[in-house]
Amino acid sequence: MTITASVRDTIRALRAEVAALHAELPRNQLVVWTAGNVSARVPGADLLVIKPSGVSYDEISPDTMVVTDLDADLVDGDLKPSSDTAAHAYVYKHMPHVGGVVHTHSTYATAWAARGEAIPCVLTMIADEFGGEIPVGPFALIGDDSIGQGIVSTLDGHRSRAVLMRNHGVFSIGKDARAAVKAAVMCEDVARTVHIARQLGAPLPIDAQDVDSLYARYQNVYGQA
Amino acid sequence: MTITASVRDTIRALRAEVAALHAELPRNQLVVWTAGNVSARVPGADLLVIKPSGVSYDEISPDTMVVTDLDADLVDGDLKPSSDTAAHAYVYKHMPHVGGVVHTHSTYATAWAARGEAIPCVLTMIADEFGGEIPVGPFALIGDDSIGQGIVSTLDGHRSRAVLMRNHGVFSIGKDARAAVKAAVMCEDVARTVHIARQLGAPLPIDAQDVDSLYARYQNVYGQA
Amino acid sequence: MTITASVRDTIRALRAEVAALHAELPRNQLVVWTAGNVSARVPGADLLVIKPSGVSYDEISPDTMVVTDLDADLVDGDLKPSSDTAAHAYVYKHMPHVGGVVHTHSTYATAWAARGEAIPCVLTMIADEFGGEIPVGPFALIGDDSIGQGIVSTLDGHRSRAVLMRNHGVFSIGKDARAAVKAAVMCEDVARTVHIARQLGAPLPIDAQDVDSLYARYQNVYGQA
Amino acid sequence: MTITASVRDTIRALRAEVAALHAELPRNQLVVWTAGNVSARVPGADLLVIKPSGVSYDEISPDTMVVTDLDADLVDGDLKPSSDTAAHAYVYKHMPHVGGVVHTHSTYATAWAARGEAIPCVLTMIADEFGGEIPVGPFALIGDDSIGQGIVSTLDGHRSRAVLMRNHGVFSIGKDARAAVKAAVMCEDVARTVHIARQLGAPLPIDAQDVDSLYARYQNVYGQA
Repeated sequence: MTITASVRDTIRALRAEVAALHAELPRNQLVVWTAGNVSARVPGADLLVIKPSGVSYDEISPDTMVVTDLDADLVDGDLKPSSDTAAHAYVYKHMPHVGGVVHTHSTYATAWAARGEAIPCVLTMIADEFGGEIPVGPFALIGDDSIGQGIVSTLDGHRSRAVLMRNHGVFSIGKDARAAVKAAVMCEDVARTVHIARQLGAPLPIDAQDVDSLYARYQNVYGQA
Repeated sequence: MTITASVRDTIRALRAEVAALHAELPRNQLVVWTAGNVSARVPGADLLVIKPSGVSYDEISPDTMVVTDLDADLVDGDLKPSSDTAAHAYVYKHMPHVGGVVHTHSTYATAWAARGEAIPCVLTMIADEFGGEIPVGPFALIGDDSIGQGIVSTLDGHRSRAVLMRNHGVFSIGKDARAAVKAAVMCEDVARTVHIARQLGAPLPIDAQDVDSLYARYQNVYGQA
Repeated sequence: MTITASVRDTIRALRAEVAALHAELPRNQLVVWTAGNVSARVPGADLLVIKPSGVSYDEISPDTMVVTDLDADLVDGDLKPSSDTAAHAYVYKHMPHVGGVVHTHSTYATAWAARGEAIPCVLTMIADEFGGEIPVGPFALIGDDSIGQGIVSTLDGHRSRAVLMRNHGVFSIGKDARAAVKAAVMCEDVARTVHIARQLGAPLPIDAQDVDSLYARYQNVYGQA
Repeated sequence: MTITASVRDTIRALRAEVAALHAELPRNQLVVWTAGNVSARVPGADLLVIKPSGVSYDEISPDTMVVTDLDADLVDGDLKPSSDTAAHAYVYKHMPHVGGVVHTHSTYATAWAARGEAIPCVLTMIADEFGGEIPVGPFALIGDDSIGQGIVSTLDGHRSRAVLMRNHGVFSIGKDARAAVKAAVMCEDVARTVHIARQLGAPLPIDAQDVDSLYARYQNVYGQA
């Protein structure tokens, strides 16, 4: 694969951005030790930037990030890519609007995933960010396309930007890596709040049309232009 | 609206105060990402100072704060005001003794709100700070006066400085922004403690006259003159 | 009361020690906002050093600490003493071996207190530090000797260095202020662990003679000479 | 025992490494106050490096670490060794492939230990790191070889690198001290996630052959070469 000068500049910027976004994972208590990873698609090339395998959050820097193609094969970098790279690559290959992917085993979301139970849309924050329930994906072994296929088949055509992979953890997507990190943070936050609500009774439902209205507003009105 | 030199000085001071108070929200684990906001009434003018929409807590500074009138229209500042500004403005318009408002989706308080259940007054700290149970407000969509009306109709004439808005989160009020932040911190703390108490049985009640006595003392004796 | 030069030196050292120990309370997540306080008896005088009322943990310094007699009347310092001073003073007056007292509303311990339930001795750490269950004290209003009496009547002759005051929070004692802080930290830690154990079933009991053996060893063998 | 120059250099390096690894315990919220300890075997000698007894995490430095033989007798250092040294030493004596041992009372793992219940393998992360359930060891008093025997009899021939000692806490092992700390961190993380999953229903099982496959892959493929 020939990498143009322009793509090389983009990769340099993305190495810095992806490295910095990794700091949000421990900061938001989504990961322990070396678990979890963030990737970004390289616009204009069939490439992605991702964390190397088994490297601690203290050692993450722009230089330690690695670049692979969408078959998860190393293109640039000194270290072995994350063992989750194939799942990230599969998502970029099959969901062209996705620019960032995040994987965590964040506690509460993973607890829902362990029971194979979707997080119901009983908070305005869930309607805002996910537009409905956060769905469960299939059990899948690591090592081939199974995890990627499970993510794509669950999220394709779904409003939710996060999927609870059964007995495993969370994958979230976004238009860029920052949006995918935000979805991962929000997913854990609502997973925790709904779990705690459910411990002492049944959360009240939100009408489907109110969910639609909240989702539409948040996607279009919230934040700076 | 003409802004006098004196009001301009007040606004400058409030921008700094409100910006600094926002740091208490993540520090006390009341918010994630860009959720949550603090506002202060500008004494001597129908204005308020509030956080801009969708801005991260790392980027908050006196200069990024925005000023709106009590119809939530931008009067001063470079960014779009928080999407919750209308609710804050409605409270200032209808509760003249309120000088500060805080909104969070803090986990345990929001869990009570998801079930539409008031937090019972079973701790001396609840009696001290809230003078009785922390009440639930109605479900309301964002975008008009519904949330503001729900807050005011619930808190007006009530001792509690916090309301659990159904399926949504917490709004707290105070004589100034700092007091409203304190109420938000206390609300989450007691929401958590009572939740945990209830998980293994029924908390013991506190007699109504003891609640009154604790509330009266705390409002008048606690703290420095 | 005449304060000798030697007592004045002791007070200066205790102001620094008590101020520094207050930092352990938020660090160990035992308090929010201005709640909680640490005191130390002034050896050789009927005096104690304690936190002033309603002052934030950021503003605590040796100079802001206050000195009172054992009737809780201010002897030295610019600020009003903690509203819990009478309870601390009562303990020093009636338990001559106590050199330090700590008060918190730490979450899990206060949850047990809200149900009026003692923490059973089902962990070796409870046997080590508390020598048996952590007992519940009576409900008592603030403002006179009721809280102090409740602490003393519960802890006098009991191995435990902590008492769960009903619907209120924790008071812990120690040979000095540091030991009382340690007991407060340990009390919350075991309150949390036993709570979590109980959520999914009954913790296994520890034989009474094993409790005795663990307690005796920890009191005599643990730590540096 | 004669200590060669080469062993002396190894000890110097291990003092620094073991001191630094102790910081991971509070950072990952596995310990409070002075509880918990990390040790490393000294390769080429029947010695270990461990934390002194009852010393706070703020005071830990390479110089404060102590060296003992495999009977837990002090060989080098100014302070009294951890009261858990006999348990660590017993493990090194009887499990020659073990190079590091960690002991904590981390909350969720200790809660499972209080009920005497193994953590079932219902997460891919448990299969990866522990290769199956995390087992329970017997109740044992401190002061002789009972704890060490309980650890060794439970872990010998077992895939798991962690054991839940009944009513007590966790011991974890690894090829070196860092690997043992990782196992302690992972053990608490999965103890928490499975606990939370169980609170609202039964986690779904993972097929035994999938557990084997995940374990084999993680041991051989994960991380850098």
